[in-house]
Amino acid sequence: MYFNDNFNSLTENYLFAEIAERIKKYTTENPEKKVLKMGIGDVTLPLVPAVTEAMHKAEDEMSQASTFRGYGPYEGYSFLREAIKNYYGTFGVKLNADEIFVSDGAKSDLGNVTEIFSQNNTVLIPDPVYPVYVDSNIIAGRKIIYTAATEENGFLPLPDKKIKADVIYICSPNNPTGAVYSQENLKEWVDYANASGAVILYDAAYERFISQTEASRSIFQIEGARTCAIEFCSFSKTAGFTGTRCGYTVIPNELERGGIRANSLWYRRQSVKFNGVPYVVQRGAEAVFSKDGKEQIQQNINYYRGNAEILANCLYKLGIWYTGGKNSPYIWLKCPEGMKSWQFFDKLLNEAQVAGTPGAGFGKNGEGYFRLTAFGSRETTTEAAKRIEKFLK
Amino acid sequence: MYFNDNFNSLTENYLFAEIAERIKKYTTENPEKKVLKMGIGDVTLPLVPAVTEAMHKAEDEMSQASTFRGYGPYEGYSFLREAIKNYYGTFGVKLNADEIFVSDGAKSDLGNVTEIFSQNNTVLIPDPVYPVYVDSNIIAGRKIIYTAATEENGFLPLPDKKIKADVIYICSPNNPTGAVYSQENLKEWVDYANASGAVILYDAAYERFISQTEASRSIFQIEGARTCAIEFCSFSKTAGFTGTRCGYTVIPNELERGGIRANSLWYRRQSVKFNGVPYVVQRGAEAVFSKDGKEQIQQNINYYRGNAEILANCLYKLGIWYTGGKNSPYIWLKCPEGMKSWQFFDKLLNEAQVAGTPGAGFGKNGEGYFRLTAFGSRETTTEAAKRIEKFLK
Repeated sequence: MYFNDNFNSLTENYLFAEIAERIKKYTTENPEKKVLKMGIGDVTLPLVPAVTEAMHKAEDEMSQASTFRGYGPYEGYSFLREAIKNYYGTFGVKLNADEIFVSDGAKSDLGNVTEIFSQNNTVLIPDPVYPVYVDSNIIAGRKIIYTAATEENGFLPLPDKKIKADVIYICSPNNPTGAVYSQENLKEWVDYANASGAVILYDAAYERFISQTEASRSIFQIEGARTCAIEFCSFSKTAGFTGTRCGYTVIPNELERGGIRANSLWYRRQSVKFNGVPYVVQRGAEAVFSKDGKEQIQQNINYYRGNAEILANCLYKLGIWYTGGKNSPYIWLKCPEGMKSWQFFDKLLNEAQVAGTPGAGFGKNGEGYFRLTAFGSRETTTEAAKRIEKFLK
Repeated sequence: MYFNDNFNSLTENYLFAEIAERIKKYTTENPEKKVLKMGIGDVTLPLVPAVTEAMHKAEDEMSQASTFRGYGPYEGYSFLREAIKNYYGTFGVKLNADEIFVSDGAKSDLGNVTEIFSQNNTVLIPDPVYPVYVDSNIIAGRKIIYTAATEENGFLPLPDKKIKADVIYICSPNNPTGAVYSQENLKEWVDYANASGAVILYDAAYERFISQTEASRSIFQIEGARTCAIEFCSFSKTAGFTGTRCGYTVIPNELERGGIRANSLWYRRQSVKFNGVPYVVQRGAEAVFSKDGKEQIQQNINYYRGNAEILANCLYKLGIWYTGGKNSPYIWLKCPEGMKSWQFFDKLLNEAQVAGTPGAGFGKNGEGYFRLTAFGSRETTTEAAKRIEKFLK
């Protein structure tokens, strides 16, 4: 018996484990100092009342024989798929409910979806990037090529017709850079994919943070996307579900190659290796789309947006280059004085007691950059901005 | 771009989809007849009070900023891992908490675990079998060989030293046959695996149904198993979690090949492609091990055992050969008069309005056999037994 030796090709340490270790070391050595954590993209506001009420109600149903639910549909209950379908309708995207697959989160689906593709495909991934795209393809032993996201292209690379790729990852609003594609630029990717037969895996986990109308909430707002794209979304950042676990994947029925539909393959994959999302969680997710739920969720999004604005204003005043913050909970800044990412991390931690995320952890083009997140409390964010300003002035 | 063409090698229709279709056809044509469904292995009793109380409490925590939980550990909260560890202690198995991985169900882990093994491994699977083992390996393109489970070996095949396999699936109490390995026979498998370097994937999803002391609740009750086995278990059948989704996988720290530990690889796989189980679900699962939880769960298990006894007695009286029913919620019977599985299915459906599961759906050695489950209500089970007796007498 041999293990899968592709695991040897993964980087030794997971980025956030390394960050946690350095913070721990600092706080152990400096117990009197309070470190403000502005790094990991986890939410801090609790679940909204509409969601918890729905979950309590569902829990009561599960405690009575007459309303108990056992195995649910692999692809999710239709009450939730219909709610998602209607939500897409609000920004003009028509879906069939059978194109929507409910899952335990965008991360799982983004990691697992590659199983429906041939081992021999070449995967195109922007650099810097959310590490899951890279690591899941390394584990599967696929050929990966990178497209450079840089300051010059606003961290929004466009397709290069000379490059041949089969599967393309796009994340917009981007994690980690917070940059957002315009509809016009997304159209270039869609046309490129349709022309070459490639498939776009579109990560829309942060779509609710979009406020500008020229940016897309969904790749399916772009003409031609239904024949070349799969979209991944999540309740994690939208509705604080990071610890509640629910997301969804949209695979249009028109997405096929050689007469085989991606939608059918994914249904089959899920029926073999997945058994659906907890009923109570699906009821909670459904409530996100109710009248009360929508209003309550919007308040939370506005709260995080306010945090992003505080951080953005701070950097603007300091004259530091950054992207994000407007249509995204992430702010991606250029480390001052030509510092490297980890150098700036250590300096900011040691001298201002603010912990962020070194851009180098997201890929080689992230070197020299740094990510801050808007998911903290207003108090922490305000204090962090104050410290950063004082430290960098 | 090409899809993974291993999907073409899967059987056209999922077994339970075919069954549902035939039942639907019958009930549409015979609307006045009530069909008793004794087929799919889904539970019918609601979640016990200890579990729903714990979930309500956790839900309240999630609704307050001070007690809200975001991303949890990939491997599960330590409160649940400690509870599982202590449970193993009750039957004499010592585990470290870091050997336990909480998941959304045994099915997901059984399907995904193959990612840590080399593509070139040969997989040994008993026939008949739970379809997930076969289908997940077909999708991955692995070489599969089968070991015959037959009436002659009591549907409990033993290792054949002439056969070389790298990864071996064992399910005991077995789905679909209900047969249970003795500790002595399991020891043969453990010795075989240790001698050849193979790894056993041990599916213990039905362990709570064991009442005989000579059978194992866990493969880790067998000497030597810590160097060759991974165990999968679930709250689905134990505590009615089929719609609530929680399970766990045990990977001993001693399980290594060539200096690489399976435990580390699985942790890495989960950190890349999974984000943990909902906090509220983990609190519900923890309550399964509380004093009240244990008592309430035991009552449910006893209820289903009572159902199994009713079915077993019926077959015994009729002189029909069967396995299971004693340490398992499944009863595996030989179709009378040499009938084939689907032939018996149709006959039983049409003439007695009882729907079971054709053994042929679980593999070629299942042909001529039939599965009944004990997860229905007492009323339905009693009525089904009555109809079967009347029909076969």
